[in-house]
Amino acid sequence: MTAVVIHDPTLRDGQHAVRHQLGMEALRGYAAAADAAGIPVVEVGHGNGLGASSLQVGRAAVPDDLMLATVREALQHSRMGVFLLPGWGTSDDLRRALKQGADVVRIGVHCTESSLAERHLGFLAEQGAEAHCVLMMSHMASPEDLAEHAARAVGHGARAVGIMDSAGHFLPDDVSERIGAIRAAVEVPVIFHGHDNLGMAVANSVAAARAGAGIIDGCARGFGAGAGNTQLEVLVPVLERTGFTTGIDLYALLDAAEFAERALMPAPPVTDSLSIVSGLAGVFSGFKHQVLEQARGAGVDPRDVFFELGRRQAIAGQEDLIGDVVAELSARGPVA
Amino acid sequence: MTAVVIHDPTLRDGQHAVRHQLGMEALRGYAAAADAAGIPVVEVGHGNGLGASSLQVGRAAVPDDLMLATVREALQHSRMGVFLLPGWGTSDDLRRALKQGADVVRIGVHCTESSLAERHLGFLAEQGAEAHCVLMMSHMASPEDLAEHAARAVGHGARAVGIMDSAGHFLPDDVSERIGAIRAAVEVPVIFHGHDNLGMAVANSVAAARAGAGIIDGCARGFGAGAGNTQLEVLVPVLERTGFTTGIDLYALLDAAEFAERALMPAPPVTDSLSIVSGLAGVFSGFKHQVLEQARGAGVDPRDVFFELGRRQAIAGQEDLIGDVVAELSARGPVA
Repeated sequence: MTAVVIHDPTLRDGQHAVRHQLGMEALRGYAAAADAAGIPVVEVGHGNGLGASSLQVGRAAVPDDLMLATVREALQHSRMGVFLLPGWGTSDDLRRALKQGADVVRIGVHCTESSLAERHLGFLAEQGAEAHCVLMMSHMASPEDLAEHAARAVGHGARAVGIMDSAGHFLPDDVSERIGAIRAAVEVPVIFHGHDNLGMAVANSVAAARAGAGIIDGCARGFGAGAGNTQLEVLVPVLERTGFTTGIDLYALLDAAEFAERALMPAPPVTDSLSIVSGLAGVFSGFKHQVLEQARGAGVDPRDVFFELGRRQAIAGQEDLIGDVVAELSARGPVA
Repeated sequence: MTAVVIHDPTLRDGQHAVRHQLGMEALRGYAAAADAAGIPVVEVGHGNGLGASSLQVGRAAVPDDLMLATVREALQHSRMGVFLLPGWGTSDDLRRALKQGADVVRIGVHCTESSLAERHLGFLAEQGAEAHCVLMMSHMASPEDLAEHAARAVGHGARAVGIMDSAGHFLPDDVSERIGAIRAAVEVPVIFHGHDNLGMAVANSVAAARAGAGIIDGCARGFGAGAGNTQLEVLVPVLERTGFTTGIDLYALLDAAEFAERALMPAPPVTDSLSIVSGLAGVFSGFKHQVLEQARGAGVDPRDVFFELGRRQAIAGQEDLIGDVVAELSARGPVA
């Protein structure tokens, strides 16, 4: 039996599904339930990480400091995780998070931009903190490139590295190949974080574990934007049945998931048409609202917009491409 | 590229999620949308099949004859499928269904009871109808036993045979092994029908196709009881990406799924705690309401009841076992 460490970003990545509006009772209640289930790491924060609460991506209901203090207090055994996107969060945010007892700090960068994590990983290494680096939108890079950037992140001080399937584009063979390549390139634990756009989040996570990933992410009821993340309380028993150990208590985990469904989300994630299309196209589903709005205004099929954005390799921050694509498709007129 | 035939029981298996209350507009609208998408077979009926509408399992909103006539009229290209469980439906029901233009008739039997399908399969063969036989609760039999019963069904006249993962218990390797065994034992197309209790319905279906299944079932938005069936509009593009052809138009399929979400279901299926437990335990999730009611009355954990029912290999029709298990667990008292 191989041990796998479960990392639970319900209170961070899940925030995307409720525009970062999780309140104190939700944070406290879920953290306590996850702690009772024996989940090793409970990640908390604004959906876009430390320091990201803003008019541009949405203000969180609870400020970072108070979120961290609340979850910290609710955790007796679980370690507390935080997430930071360079540019959104700063070293000051990291410093404060460490003071508040963050045990695991993840730096997220676009899959080919490990250098953006260098300064933060170096700072965290100096502080003796457990720093992870996750490569986002990882379907946009080859296994070799991912392995190279993972190795660089370890060089910068990361104690674990891995990939996020941010667009929910991977099928299990894709994951096996990429995790295998990273595993061969680094000595530290490898991370996999899935999204369920193509109904493959659990299967992809099992493929990751089999390929040697040591840290796997999952959210209660799949809480997250669009099709959601890997459903944690499904992932854990399936991993156990597949020959991995998680140390998590099944019934307490199911209780935590029921609490989450009741107290955190208006409804569990649904894999709707645009979630599927964004997964197929390999585009971040966070584009959805802007695509819908602009496509409708121009009488263009939003699905065509997603596929064209995929062909152009659009990534978060390139929202201006949506307007270009809509204008171009609109000018082309309906296809015969 | 290998062709796979998609069989869509949204208007039959999905009925379980709404206590067989699909109305005329829903039937007509979804059948037309599925037809427009080029779905080869659209199955319709009471959730438990022809002739099953009754006080015991619930009366359908629309009688069989009217359901079939309505769907028949809405289909221009797709073939119409019906389902029959021996004991619930009779030869008379089959005769009427054929008169109303049913093209594909599936006889469902418990996985080790192919003999129960003999008479109906013989009758259908005489009539020149395309008869299928599906082995339900197929996780309860070994690959060898499934292959043997599949071969017998072909001997009785089935032109396709396969398995239903009625409890949603399988993981992909389980499916590969079973489909492979059946494939080696028969010359006719092999069927796979999945449920999503462990988040594996799409992955299991891909495994089935890779192992040689030629007919795969899926329901729009996964419409079905509990965790639901394989999500059709996810299954199709994932099969296509994996190297299979379905002949189905993606956008029209997504439109059909959107219609289904809007007009057929109060909400898409959710994989809740008892769906997961019933999948792990290998128990038909249709037991859920009775388990919940009796367990609560006796102060017993319904999850323990499901796991114990699984150990006792309970199957549909053995609902009296629920009371026995609850009484026994209650007498045992809380475990220290």
